[in-house]
Amino acid sequence: MHYQPALDDIHFILHDVLKAPVQLQSMRRFADTDADLMRQVVDEAGKFVADVVAPLQSVGDSVGCRWAEGQVTTPPGFRDAYQAFWRNGWPALACATEDGGQGLPAVLEAVLFEMLSGANHGWTMAPGLLHGAYECLKHHGSEELKSRYLQRIASGEWLATMCLTEAHAGSDLGQVRTRAVPQPDGSFSLNGSKIFISGGEHDLSDNIVHLVLARLPDAPAGPKGLSLFLAPKFLPDGQRNAALCDRIEEKMGLHGSPTCAMRFEDATGWIIGEPNRGLNAMFVMMNAARLHVALQGVGLLEAAWQKAHAYAQERRQMRAPGPRDASQSSDLIAQHPAMQRLLDTQRVWIDGGRVLAYRTAIELDMASHHPDAARREQAHRWCALTTPVLKAALTHQAFYGASECLQVFGGHGYVREWGIEQIVRDARVAMIYEGTNEIQAIDLLVRKVLADGGAALATLLHELDGELDLSRAADAATSGRFAKLNQLTRTLVEAARSNPVLPYALADDYLRLLALALLGWAWTGIEAAAGTDAPRWRAPSVLHTRVLPEFDMWIGTLTLQCQASSAAK
Amino acid sequence: MHYQPALDDIHFILHDVLKAPVQLQSMRRFADTDADLMRQVVDEAGKFVADVVAPLQSVGDSVGCRWAEGQVTTPPGFRDAYQAFWRNGWPALACATEDGGQGLPAVLEAVLFEMLSGANHGWTMAPGLLHGAYECLKHHGSEELKSRYLQRIASGEWLATMCLTEAHAGSDLGQVRTRAVPQPDGSFSLNGSKIFISGGEHDLSDNIVHLVLARLPDAPAGPKGLSLFLAPKFLPDGQRNAALCDRIEEKMGLHGSPTCAMRFEDATGWIIGEPNRGLNAMFVMMNAARLHVALQGVGLLEAAWQKAHAYAQERRQMRAPGPRDASQSSDLIAQHPAMQRLLDTQRVWIDGGRVLAYRTAIELDMASHHPDAARREQAHRWCALTTPVLKAALTHQAFYGASECLQVFGGHGYVREWGIEQIVRDARVAMIYEGTNEIQAIDLLVRKVLADGGAALATLLHELDGELDLSRAADAATSGRFAKLNQLTRTLVEAARSNPVLPYALADDYLRLLALALLGWAWTGIEAAAGTDAPRWRAPSVLHTRVLPEFDMWIGTLTLQCQASSAAK
Repeated sequence: MHYQPALDDIHFILHDVLKAPVQLQSMRRFADTDADLMRQVVDEAGKFVADVVAPLQSVGDSVGCRWAEGQVTTPPGFRDAYQAFWRNGWPALACATEDGGQGLPAVLEAVLFEMLSGANHGWTMAPGLLHGAYECLKHHGSEELKSRYLQRIASGEWLATMCLTEAHAGSDLGQVRTRAVPQPDGSFSLNGSKIFISGGEHDLSDNIVHLVLARLPDAPAGPKGLSLFLAPKFLPDGQRNAALCDRIEEKMGLHGSPTCAMRFEDATGWIIGEPNRGLNAMFVMMNAARLHVALQGVGLLEAAWQKAHAYAQERRQMRAPGPRDASQSSDLIAQHPAMQRLLDTQRVWIDGGRVLAYRTAIELDMASHHPDAARREQAHRWCALTTPVLKAALTHQAFYGASECLQVFGGHGYVREWGIEQIVRDARVAMIYEGTNEIQAIDLLVRKVLADGGAALATLLHELDGELDLSRAADAATSGRFAKLNQLTRTLVEAARSNPVLPYALADDYLRLLALALLGWAWTGIEAAAGTDAPRWRAPSVLHTRVLPEFDMWIGTLTLQCQASSAAK
Repeated sequence: MHYQPALDDIHFILHDVLKAPVQLQSMRRFADTDADLMRQVVDEAGKFVADVVAPLQSVGDSVGCRWAEGQVTTPPGFRDAYQAFWRNGWPALACATEDGGQGLPAVLEAVLFEMLSGANHGWTMAPGLLHGAYECLKHHGSEELKSRYLQRIASGEWLATMCLTEAHAGSDLGQVRTRAVPQPDGSFSLNGSKIFISGGEHDLSDNIVHLVLARLPDAPAGPKGLSLFLAPKFLPDGQRNAALCDRIEEKMGLHGSPTCAMRFEDATGWIIGEPNRGLNAMFVMMNAARLHVALQGVGLLEAAWQKAHAYAQERRQMRAPGPRDASQSSDLIAQHPAMQRLLDTQRVWIDGGRVLAYRTAIELDMASHHPDAARREQAHRWCALTTPVLKAALTHQAFYGASECLQVFGGHGYVREWGIEQIVRDARVAMIYEGTNEIQAIDLLVRKVLADGGAALATLLHELDGELDLSRAADAATSGRFAKLNQLTRTLVEAARSNPVLPYALADDYLRLLALALLGWAWTGIEAAAGTDAPRWRAPSVLHTRVLPEFDMWIGTLTLQCQASSAAK
């Protein structure tokens, strides 16, 4: 079976839980984005995903991308699907109308990309970088560059890449060595090698626009000596630029996306933004890019759950405990308690993760477009604090949860034809790219939480607390977790003063703790919106009996480690 | 880098922690198995594994097994390595001397297979079934069958398979449909299709001996109507038997091992043991087979750790917190606290897992060969209770821990050339085969613990308690965990009386709880043996701060669920 967009669930979360239309209409830019329009866009997107993109999931893996003499051929059907995608206007969904876009809110793009990732993670990598490139060019590009490239990128007619990583410079971009030498005509000549460039070369679009991190002559060493350049595959005069693909990587999965080793050999490029401010120009899109990866996590986990759920409803093995259907000699896998629990656990993360990720997409727009400065600041706070949490926690759950779903199939799960092992392999990369999950954790704890002594986090938790109804048990428990989290954060602020290494050792656990607190909070919103007569939306018992109890374990171990650190001083 | 057998670690655990030679010499059969002999065998085995088997790890994955017209070709080098393996006597290590074996203890075979699995999981699948087939035939085969096959299997000259699973009968063997019809000459004619048959067809050995589960005419339905048959690829007269391979599966990993769909078409076979007692004949080898899979877990995790550890000692990325080496612009990955912790966590499981698995191998021999009936019973108890725990917990950790090791490589971990993603893919299957980990958990809780009201477990924990030195803090904490485990077990026995479904829902968590209790216990043994001046064997701080605290979380959630179940009645 192919992935099916979970339209009812998505509508429920957008409208009933998050009240997205009302929220968005507080911004003039989205005054016309009413509930009907949102439903219509989501339904149309779901149709495109199901009809065009989902059927290419398996061929993307089995055939994969092929490299020959510098050219990359994508799997059969990929180019046609991409051409249909951009011609139907999907990449331009959330681009400004003045750039040829539809000016719709980011949350609709979020829904689109969640569905695309669930349907076909490999194919989705290609358009996945478009919006970031669009924002980067829009905010930092010269008028001339924008006039040549912005609309082509907004529409998706030309695809884009981010050429950051080099063999010796992965997480550590400060070590980038690619050089850019100014030319008399105002362009730059780029020389250097990049690796892990998703979509560095392919046949999906007629041109490819590379955003390249490089170093000007005499630039300072380290990250503050990096500048950003735009180098297209084909120059404006139609000449092939020397942005060359030397090979594509053999990977664990994601075979539908070519991961290219690129060589820039006197390639022509133009600077984007100020000299030595290249990272700054790229970081404008970082929260959005990380949120996209978090949404990949939701989409992949939904896809894995769908497969396992369908199999469990169809395959009989052994007798389950409890009342039996005497007409059968064995029971459905879904009737075995261990399997129910495993499937329910994934639903906890999918539904709760969706609430948090969609909310973040709404806050991204709030941060840019809300008329009230205090509301914009509040939105910035939400995005800064929750984005690394969601990127790490939801990609973690996508991989480990998809692996649990594989278990439902028994031996069949390990065999390619069922497609579940592909999801496990594909999902693994999302824990690494766009900043490894460990880097997200350090970003959260060191840069976002401890930097101001925990003040911003305390404010965020206070705001979320205000959305709770403390007469409900789950809401009161959520509030209690927030209080414990604040207390622990204070302990950690204190301990970090005497032991500055400590936060680096505890960051992953702290991120997990915050993820669990937010997950519990998200479910209170789901249950409040559903009321008591919507069994589909009643929290599975595993949420309270198995998932959330982990919160107290981390509180305990983190406190223990803070105390041990203080005692050692 | 290829896998390197961890000989020093293995010797330390065998000799210093477990005092294996003294233990084994309590049995007449192993009177000559002194420390020197054990060291010598382990060192020789390590040399063979490192020189012959480990170098074939990568080709096993990249080339894999190929099927054409019913024939299976294994990857280049596989046959030569296997021929050297059996001619050097390795399969016969733990077989009885009267069968041409060396009569050495099972724990040496355990060490051999742990190393083989770490070096090359795919290749190791072929000889992995030999010892089980040997035991099965030895204890249940007719004299005629034994005279024809036992020595060939003991020596490994002919490889063996277990033909159990059918498309509709995976975990649920009672549904097996393959039929066996008696022939006038005392043989049986076998007809039916089997799937997931490891090594069902290949070019490693000159003959293949299939053990086939099938149903006699008029046999009762279900598991009590199954008989076991031996059907060789080549009959004694040299004729090709109709045990045919229709295809091999495309899998997530383990490409070095052909997973065959077999068709028996009037194939000739002979019965092993009594009619309708086939499962009984196979179950004789179940504890040993499960222990082998647990040892695969240890080997695979050691292999993953070795790769990640080496990479972390060599690759520099970013500045680590704390004191800096000013001559470098970035620090080794090993200096980053999150990476240290991740690597240390795997060591906790590798070293502790090794202690538990080797001890189980010793207890397997005790159960069969110790002169004292009470000691044999004690050994039976150990094996019955710990084997499912080790199979599930150590294969779980192999996959999830190898995935953590992959994370150390960043983007490079996702690329094939580094070999770490192969370990992750290969390791995944061990959570499924030889009884899924969920089935291990039900076996443990329902069949082994609750069946006698927790008495056997309480006795085991009491025995382990007796090996502790309560003046040490870690030992006292271990003893405290045993007490909590006993208390919880009593609660569960009580709750299961009114709600018989409950144990099936809680079995996985209960298994995890017992695994953590045993892991803590194993580490007390390591620390006691090492003394205070052996930093290599000091428990990493993660054991106490991150790994063992999970124990109390499960105590909490399991207690909660028992209470909720009682309240609902």
